[in-house]
Amino acid sequence: MNKSVFVGELTWKEYEASIAGGERVLFLPVGALEQHGHHMCMDVDVLLPTAVSQRVAQRIDALVLPALHYGYKSQQKSGGGNHFPGTTSLDGATLTHSVLDIIRELARHGVRRLVLMNGHYENSMFIVEGIDLALRELRYAGINDFRVVVLSYWDFIKDPDVIAQLYPDGFLGWDIEHGGVFETSLMLALYPERVDMERVVDHPPASFPPYDVFPIIPERTPAPGTLSSAVGASREKGELILRVCVAGIASAVEEVFNPPS
Amino acid sequence: MNKSVFVGELTWKEYEASIAGGERVLFLPVGALEQHGHHMCMDVDVLLPTAVSQRVAQRIDALVLPALHYGYKSQQKSGGGNHFPGTTSLDGATLTHSVLDIIRELARHGVRRLVLMNGHYENSMFIVEGIDLALRELRYAGINDFRVVVLSYWDFIKDPDVIAQLYPDGFLGWDIEHGGVFETSLMLALYPERVDMERVVDHPPASFPPYDVFPIIPERTPAPGTLSSAVGASREKGELILRVCVAGIASAVEEVFNPPS
Amino acid sequence: MNKSVFVGELTWKEYEASIAGGERVLFLPVGALEQHGHHMCMDVDVLLPTAVSQRVAQRIDALVLPALHYGYKSQQKSGGGNHFPGTTSLDGATLTHSVLDIIRELARHGVRRLVLMNGHYENSMFIVEGIDLALRELRYAGINDFRVVVLSYWDFIKDPDVIAQLYPDGFLGWDIEHGGVFETSLMLALYPERVDMERVVDHPPASFPPYDVFPIIPERTPAPGTLSSAVGASREKGELILRVCVAGIASAVEEVFNPPS
Amino acid sequence: MNKSVFVGELTWKEYEASIAGGERVLFLPVGALEQHGHHMCMDVDVLLPTAVSQRVAQRIDALVLPALHYGYKSQQKSGGGNHFPGTTSLDGATLTHSVLDIIRELARHGVRRLVLMNGHYENSMFIVEGIDLALRELRYAGINDFRVVVLSYWDFIKDPDVIAQLYPDGFLGWDIEHGGVFETSLMLALYPERVDMERVVDHPPASFPPYDVFPIIPERTPAPGTLSSAVGASREKGELILRVCVAGIASAVEEVFNPPS
Amino acid sequence: MNKSVFVGELTWKEYEASIAGGERVLFLPVGALEQHGHHMCMDVDVLLPTAVSQRVAQRIDALVLPALHYGYKSQQKSGGGNHFPGTTSLDGATLTHSVLDIIRELARHGVRRLVLMNGHYENSMFIVEGIDLALRELRYAGINDFRVVVLSYWDFIKDPDVIAQLYPDGFLGWDIEHGGVFETSLMLALYPERVDMERVVDHPPASFPPYDVFPIIPERTPAPGTLSSAVGASREKGELILRVCVAGIASAVEEVFNPPS
Amino acid sequence: MNKSVFVGELTWKEYEASIAGGERVLFLPVGALEQHGHHMCMDVDVLLPTAVSQRVAQRIDALVLPALHYGYKSQQKSGGGNHFPGTTSLDGATLTHSVLDIIRELARHGVRRLVLMNGHYENSMFIVEGIDLALRELRYAGINDFRVVVLSYWDFIKDPDVIAQLYPDGFLGWDIEHGGVFETSLMLALYPERVDMERVVDHPPASFPPYDVFPIIPERTPAPGTLSSAVGASREKGELILRVCVAGIASAVEEVFNPPS
Repeated sequence: MNKSVFVGELTWKEYEASIAGGERVLFLPVGALEQHGHHMCMDVDVLLPTAVSQRVAQRIDALVLPALHYGYKSQQKSGGGNHFPGTTSLDGATLTHSVLDIIRELARHGVRRLVLMNGHYENSMFIVEGIDLALRELRYAGINDFRVVVLSYWDFIKDPDVIAQLYPDGFLGWDIEHGGVFETSLMLALYPERVDMERVVDHPPASFPPYDVFPIIPERTPAPGTLSSAVGASREKGELILRVCVAGIASAVEEVFNPPS
Repeated sequence: MNKSVFVGELTWKEYEASIAGGERVLFLPVGALEQHGHHMCMDVDVLLPTAVSQRVAQRIDALVLPALHYGYKSQQKSGGGNHFPGTTSLDGATLTHSVLDIIRELARHGVRRLVLMNGHYENSMFIVEGIDLALRELRYAGINDFRVVVLSYWDFIKDPDVIAQLYPDGFLGWDIEHGGVFETSLMLALYPERVDMERVVDHPPASFPPYDVFPIIPERTPAPGTLSSAVGASREKGELILRVCVAGIASAVEEVFNPPS
Repeated sequence: MNKSVFVGELTWKEYEASIAGGERVLFLPVGALEQHGHHMCMDVDVLLPTAVSQRVAQRIDALVLPALHYGYKSQQKSGGGNHFPGTTSLDGATLTHSVLDIIRELARHGVRRLVLMNGHYENSMFIVEGIDLALRELRYAGINDFRVVVLSYWDFIKDPDVIAQLYPDGFLGWDIEHGGVFETSLMLALYPERVDMERVVDHPPASFPPYDVFPIIPERTPAPGTLSSAVGASREKGELILRVCVAGIASAVEEVFNPPS
Repeated sequence: MNKSVFVGELTWKEYEASIAGGERVLFLPVGALEQHGHHMCMDVDVLLPTAVSQRVAQRIDALVLPALHYGYKSQQKSGGGNHFPGTTSLDGATLTHSVLDIIRELARHGVRRLVLMNGHYENSMFIVEGIDLALRELRYAGINDFRVVVLSYWDFIKDPDVIAQLYPDGFLGWDIEHGGVFETSLMLALYPERVDMERVVDHPPASFPPYDVFPIIPERTPAPGTLSSAVGASREKGELILRVCVAGIASAVEEVFNPPS
Repeated sequence: MNKSVFVGELTWKEYEASIAGGERVLFLPVGALEQHGHHMCMDVDVLLPTAVSQRVAQRIDALVLPALHYGYKSQQKSGGGNHFPGTTSLDGATLTHSVLDIIRELARHGVRRLVLMNGHYENSMFIVEGIDLALRELRYAGINDFRVVVLSYWDFIKDPDVIAQLYPDGFLGWDIEHGGVFETSLMLALYPERVDMERVVDHPPASFPPYDVFPIIPERTPAPGTLSSAVGASREKGELILRVCVAGIASAVEEVFNPPS
Repeated sequence: MNKSVFVGELTWKEYEASIAGGERVLFLPVGALEQHGHHMCMDVDVLLPTAVSQRVAQRIDALVLPALHYGYKSQQKSGGGNHFPGTTSLDGATLTHSVLDIIRELARHGVRRLVLMNGHYENSMFIVEGIDLALRELRYAGINDFRVVVLSYWDFIKDPDVIAQLYPDGFLGWDIEHGGVFETSLMLALYPERVDMERVVDHPPASFPPYDVFPIIPERTPAPGTLSSAVGASREKGELILRVCVAGIASAVEEVFNPPS
């Protein structure tokens, strides 16, 4: 029997056996192709939720679907903006319908438990809409027991001690973590070959007014595209983040789908 | 000459004269029909951004369009969830296309400056998508100078002193302000007849896990539908909020559209 | 207990109690932001169906939803055309989906009786499509008892005596009533402060060939935007119209939803 | 050279030559597959506008495109309702997009003059929307000189003398002409083999309240599906109608596209 | 009783009687308005599947719906490309939704057996999508017994002897049959007045690289628009094709819907 | 300088430098998550076009975008059908819009040369539609020089000698190659760890009637899901295929984008 947690690496018979009964949990990582500063590759938002999904899946005996590699348009205050070369984004409806179509198909297979693991902040509401449209349609098909958890893995870093270890000089908020200490540390722990710490541009944290302007005013984004400096990133921090996220998500997923009776 | 700031109260000739040259700023309030607890009416998210828009418009000689009265689906962690009777929401695409269509028409009129004043947290990304689709289409029409500011009025309460006045026992975050001190105080200042403080249910702040589940688990929302208690609300706080928001937004809008040369 | 007929002014608990059992009738006014000549404001098509809905609702103990403030594109022969500044219209699909989404939500609440009160001629078919799509979808959800009445309030002026009182010199058809005696009289009765009879432009009734041309030939519309002169409008006529419409609609709605057994 | 006025009967080289310069007028008949009573076939709404288009085209040297054979949903007050077997209708968006796509293609060919000849009342607004979307898109392509006439051929019967000849006992309005004297006479003049006057059901004219109800109340439509009796129909009346419509439309089209200078 | 196989030629009562019980098979021809070389008219792809449908319907006592006269965009390797004047194509979604809407309506009538007879290669996948969306929706409506056969009539020419008779010098594949011996022979057998063999341009078969380029490189299509020469076409070949297709399709349809028990 | 051909592995600055001037060719692999028999994993249609893209890109100094991992619905005659567990497909419009959105973004970056490398037969027409919609929209933006090549890599195996080596007992057509010798050999050459030749089910080639039936008749697909037996597959054949495809595609792409002057 194939032991991969990745659905794409299974034969359909292995998959069929694995999901039989509908209790298997599946993870769908949702990412983006997006600039992440001068020092990191552009598929960070796919690699990270996929890696977290994989580790949680291994721990709780779940499966991981192929990621959605393209996401919603980068916003200035959370991703620097959608004006950078390389950043390649979908319209909201395209992302929403991708989620809808995949859920409809999983339901046909017999799957009833899905975790949408988001790796790109801007995706959230379009994922939520895809879930809502899908569950509505499943109800028309008489399927009422399909359940979906949606999460952004960084939201599991809540422990003040952990935050203090990651940001000894003070935490400035997830908003400006794009390409900063958090993502860079995780990449150093998981894919160090795709990070070049020598190219990190050390700049003050981005600071934005309490509104957005369209068309974007590009100068408001720090020139390298990161919203805070990754200088403080380290492999050790990445391993800590990974440990906390994997443990937290594994236990959340168990709590939802296998609550103690 | 009609002195109303509300576009709907003008004749088309008055409007035409007012926007001539394209420098007039227009506000479009975007709200929702949504439960706001036992003590408040359901159109809070329309009334408040409209009132803020009106006051800013009076100050900077701008105009206010009729509000969008229906918004995106209420989410559990920010609005209690979309399962309440009364909460009446649009699919994301419907809201997005409403914004797109209105911008396209304003551009035809000759308007070039628009402020989308959001009053319902869940609307944000679908408004952003509407703006993006609209500006893309305007570019195809050869219109490159249409600018849009989008904001949620509560984001202008940033001053720690103000927050301390509003939340003497500590601020718990905008997330759980749904139907709480903030909105209730504003309503008391603006529409006291639509608030019944005697019906406020005093409950501990809602506390949610770092993920969402669909279908929603209704019990996770406090029974009255509010996410934090409105017991501490007062007309005075509402007036303070209004003052700070109006001043902040007026100056932000001026900064964007009439920067000092 | 809150006695307002406006859903937006109720708390969700009041609304929930009011619609319990599914026999409560709800009104949804559907209007437009559209030029109405030199002498009237642009939200006539929202104000009038809302006022009629309110009065009927008071009489038959029904409720009124927040109006849809934007409607379908003004057509030359019924509204002067969509080329005027100020007229701000939606694509047909946006209006249709707004109606669909609202009906879907009302059905979730438990509502089963809806009256779509149209105030803008051009909306009709897109409302009809929204109803058809909604009822189709509700059938998929197993809901077969949701009923919708759709009407344009002016269609209730059928009595030749009434028409003779309104148009002593002869009635020329609803088509060219845009901004004319009918709407202006109603506004004088309901919102006199938004009408300036001194600015009425007296012009012969618009006369159109039996076809339409696109792009529109603007000169075919009388310059003020009205299709017939409002000179003959009066508060008294408006009160008569209101009385006849309210009585007729109240009795029609009762006939549909509470037929004598 | 092929002398057919039907585009489908031409080779592309003949068509190319015919439309060169962009001054050729094209007709697009838009119909429906819809019940027309016990005595007539179901493609009346395609046959009639096609026949009228053909005759006008012959007179003014224009071309006729293949008709759209499916139309928008039959409404009770104008077509009996969409609940009859045989009536086979499109969603509004499908009809709108069909019109849009065809106009976009004609513009690519170099055509600049189009007449949409409607044969099914309920199509009108969805055709109008298709035209509006198409001309908007053509503007983005830099095409500003594409002009469209849209008409329903029956609107050209305006002469009171003609109406008196058709309806010696009084005219009751186009609304209830569905399957009545007007359409039946035209069919007798053009396609007598598709009419069986012996099966005409003589019934009083349909009478509807000033509102619509959904789901439809089928009993409100006369059982045969016609809205007025076709008993008074005759070939001679059909020929008169045809003569008046063809002459009127030919002159209207000339007026729009070749106005006397 | 009307003996026509064409649904459009029936009254609704005849149609209702004919489809009662749901065992009647209906054919929906799906064509295109597309250039077919210098020697043939542009509605070949409508005429041929309609004629085949008619003959099969006569043989097996089925009915034929009005054809879809517009199809998906002509592709260079199968239809010469969509750049020719006259070729008038729909977006894929428009074709898909036309198929979806018609199936939904047929199901409402009580029809349960449909054959989609394709006459234009490029339509295939958009028809398939329309069927899939329709059957999915019918399942939501609780209809699980609607069955659809989809076919392109030329796929029934499989017998090597027949192919040898048609192409004595060797068969080069259906791909390049656009406007060639196959379609031209069928037209000569069915509609000889719409073919002018003297205008046939004799050219070597089109030869394309194993990829497509967009925008199209028009020179890769033989100038007349045909992909192979029609010089070898004959009425006799057309009659042979028709005989084989009609027999094959009739027996296939019987096999699917009336299998021997 | 990062030497990866994968866009996702580059920083945005590297990407920006690489595409400067617009002459860089980008590859977008388009795959599917689809059953491939008992002996192979389900992401074959992603792995293979990605691997081919990578090798061609290395040879001609091009770049490879992240693949689209989900494709259009598997059809019985080319992929066994969409009823298998594991096969997870998109609606056509979702795939089309994914392609459209990505092209729009690439154009914004300055890219002008794209190769869509299809790995799943059923995707073809929805990719084509995405390209057509994208190039149409780019023209509205004034971009007329964006060129797209679309290909399915197996179409480059045309040399009879190669085919004879791959299929010494005779080639039965690409249609039934799903999971057969061709794909399995390629997988053995590229990802042998995802193939288990011991699980290959040896069965006669699938044989289908010249039509399709919906809902699918599952028994018509060989039980393992493959359409022909993979018993004859080998690493050597895979290497041959890869060599031929890579060489052929590289030279085709050069021919289109860098023709000898």
